[in-house]
Amino acid sequence: MIRKLSAEAFGTFWLVFGGCGAAVLAAGIPDLGIAYAGVALAFGLTVLTMAYAVGGISGGHFNPAVSVGLAMAGRFAWKDLPGYAVAQVFGAFAAGFALYAIASGVDGWSPGGFASNGFGDLSPHGYSMQAALLIEIILTAGFLIVILGSTSKAVPGGFAPISIGLALTLIHLVSIPVTNTSVNPARSTGVAFFAETGATGQLWLFWVAPIVGAIIGACIWRYILSPGETLEDIGGE
Amino acid sequence: MIRKLSAEAFGTFWLVFGGCGAAVLAAGIPDLGIAYAGVALAFGLTVLTMAYAVGGISGGHFNPAVSVGLAMAGRFAWKDLPGYAVAQVFGAFAAGFALYAIASGVDGWSPGGFASNGFGDLSPHGYSMQAALLIEIILTAGFLIVILGSTSKAVPGGFAPISIGLALTLIHLVSIPVTNTSVNPARSTGVAFFAETGATGQLWLFWVAPIVGAIIGACIWRYILSPGETLEDIGGE
Amino acid sequence: MIRKLSAEAFGTFWLVFGGCGAAVLAAGIPDLGIAYAGVALAFGLTVLTMAYAVGGISGGHFNPAVSVGLAMAGRFAWKDLPGYAVAQVFGAFAAGFALYAIASGVDGWSPGGFASNGFGDLSPHGYSMQAALLIEIILTAGFLIVILGSTSKAVPGGFAPISIGLALTLIHLVSIPVTNTSVNPARSTGVAFFAETGATGQLWLFWVAPIVGAIIGACIWRYILSPGETLEDIGGE
Amino acid sequence: MIRKLSAEAFGTFWLVFGGCGAAVLAAGIPDLGIAYAGVALAFGLTVLTMAYAVGGISGGHFNPAVSVGLAMAGRFAWKDLPGYAVAQVFGAFAAGFALYAIASGVDGWSPGGFASNGFGDLSPHGYSMQAALLIEIILTAGFLIVILGSTSKAVPGGFAPISIGLALTLIHLVSIPVTNTSVNPARSTGVAFFAETGATGQLWLFWVAPIVGAIIGACIWRYILSPGETLEDIGGE
Repeated sequence: MIRKLSAEAFGTFWLVFGGCGAAVLAAGIPDLGIAYAGVALAFGLTVLTMAYAVGGISGGHFNPAVSVGLAMAGRFAWKDLPGYAVAQVFGAFAAGFALYAIASGVDGWSPGGFASNGFGDLSPHGYSMQAALLIEIILTAGFLIVILGSTSKAVPGGFAPISIGLALTLIHLVSIPVTNTSVNPARSTGVAFFAETGATGQLWLFWVAPIVGAIIGACIWRYILSPGETLEDIGGE
Repeated sequence: MIRKLSAEAFGTFWLVFGGCGAAVLAAGIPDLGIAYAGVALAFGLTVLTMAYAVGGISGGHFNPAVSVGLAMAGRFAWKDLPGYAVAQVFGAFAAGFALYAIASGVDGWSPGGFASNGFGDLSPHGYSMQAALLIEIILTAGFLIVILGSTSKAVPGGFAPISIGLALTLIHLVSIPVTNTSVNPARSTGVAFFAETGATGQLWLFWVAPIVGAIIGACIWRYILSPGETLEDIGGE
Repeated sequence: MIRKLSAEAFGTFWLVFGGCGAAVLAAGIPDLGIAYAGVALAFGLTVLTMAYAVGGISGGHFNPAVSVGLAMAGRFAWKDLPGYAVAQVFGAFAAGFALYAIASGVDGWSPGGFASNGFGDLSPHGYSMQAALLIEIILTAGFLIVILGSTSKAVPGGFAPISIGLALTLIHLVSIPVTNTSVNPARSTGVAFFAETGATGQLWLFWVAPIVGAIIGACIWRYILSPGETLEDIGGE
Repeated sequence: MIRKLSAEAFGTFWLVFGGCGAAVLAAGIPDLGIAYAGVALAFGLTVLTMAYAVGGISGGHFNPAVSVGLAMAGRFAWKDLPGYAVAQVFGAFAAGFALYAIASGVDGWSPGGFASNGFGDLSPHGYSMQAALLIEIILTAGFLIVILGSTSKAVPGGFAPISIGLALTLIHLVSIPVTNTSVNPARSTGVAFFAETGATGQLWLFWVAPIVGAIIGACIWRYILSPGETLEDIGGE
């Protein structure tokens, strides 16, 4: 279990350091910056690369909502959920800290939103709480369907990290302007405390919506798309 | 069959919500927006991810023109076509509705073209009806050749979603300025009714051209590129 | 052989229509255009997708320089070279024609360079003939090493189109500003006659340099990197 | 061994010519340039493509820090390290030379930073030496974890170049603004001597930090994530 929790902690560190790091350090530079599309690519590649690297150890969740959804779908033991969630949040927070240390290494820098998630006044482009809830729920539900389907026995081994990682890129391409894209409570928590904008006051939504979405997605998979699935079908994982 | 139709509905929902969502929410933001290239990537990734997720259930068409082309090539039963098409259009329309609900969650928003397809006055950059017909036919024909070839027995299992999804990205990289890129009548229909621009009056072209193109592509594959192909060759799918 | 030549013609059509189409139609649009990076992605994806689609039929060269290099490396029969080259140039020219028909479907359009290749005055950013020769030779040599290595028996089946297609993306990311990137005489020929800029007068370089580069790359592979390779090693292809 | 060293030299040539070439020739062009995201993609694709091409010959390190990390993890013989490092630096320097010859083929060109790495005054956006050290160490450590994990027996063969190449893209998406991104002492050395900015005076950091990071990453893998791993587990490579 220590290997699994370490894998989740390092993987979530990589997700937040890479994804939020791209947003904080490289997105907004005039003319040469990577813009939202580059941030979307960065988030997706953190999951693609670490899912290949340590997916065989821990399953490669890097996200408490994903862990909940996998448990709901019968692919992950509920009893392991608390440990996974703690490791994920710890890794995310460590990444936020490391990123803060680096980003502050340029004169006159201030953290601002520090890649935190938000709605209303803290939405990158002023989207309402309702819009934020809706898009986070829909995208996390779709994310879980992609995860559950891509790791089912219908897909030859080895492709799941590509599918799942690039799903996260897709999700960011759509929703950065609305909430700065969470679909991952650990990612939201890992940077919120470093922001100057009061992002912590909105953290509840980025736990509730992704988890609700993950449960919906898992139920769609289990009861509609793949009703006869048993653990045996997916190799007992 | 209910599983197959659900898979097509959810998959087409994902295609329209992800692809048109990227266009409506994120493409045009000054400096940081994802621009046409980001939209092209988003459309491709919707198909890549959902083809991995539910391709094993329904075949992963998400597009009535693709279903027609596959039927023409002998890979899909004509009798299943109406059900597939209804499920695809239903999923696309649901995505249009959800996207509208989210996009309207910012003050002062108006739908405008709402990522609808068009030609002439409704072409993003003023291309004629003839140009629109030609490019939609050519690109859908090529799309079908990629689909049929990538799922033939010459290609090891598991790679088809990458090839097919990225073909859709390529198609968008070329043709967004001309028609906003359809090659998919369900995608066109799913958002046209939410546009303020009269896009519904041009919907006919985005049913006719993709279907004509798909038939041409399927015939090129079946009669020129792979004339001896039997169902057995492709594993009886 | 008719299937092989058809596959090369359709594949090269797709390469030129997709790659040059992205350049002509979508690259330069203010704010939303796909810019050079989008064109680079488009070119790579044409090869990635068509290599999956018809690579099993013809080998998926789509490029006379590649055919020469493969012949030099002992992977392709010299006697098939003329047929392949004719099919490739025919497909490229047909694509140039179709693209011209579409691009002219907007008022006031003029072809300009029409995505043709050039050096000196016709280089996108004024690079000399020497620079053009050098970069085309180096990049085509590297391209052949990637092609020969990725299709050798050391790599599991199915990955070669990803490696080769993305190599073409890489090549464009580097060299569009210098020559508009050829590394493919058929691609250069297919659009040069539609340009208003005198691109045909420079076509010779885009036959000579890619072919010289391909021969160098093939020799590096055959005599340095993989000296003991026999046809048997690569499955008799 | 001559084949292995040649493979490392050509591969590192490709990495520097492609990655730094994209930066020098194509990144900063107004409106149409590939910007930092295009450079990040180019670097990643150099490794993806050459790892497929010659990874079966030499292992595809193309980076002295990677060779050190692999030796530390027990995957590479320490005695082969000097030869590999010399071949890598030689390939990188040859690439810098070729790139200089091409880039100087436009009137009025001056090398400027020539894609060299730096901190403080030579950081692209003024980041301190501490920030540079920290980010190079963290990203190289993560890079090694991705490399070691993606080539472990838990991952089906053939996917490692995708994972490793795209990890390098991710790393560049995050850190180009800080140090212009090294994580590779050979890459830093290959261009530093062509810069006009005094980049050679800072080269030490781009040897020290990547190597320290690689050792940390290798230790995390060997002692925490995969403590029971033996050479047998990874097929004796």
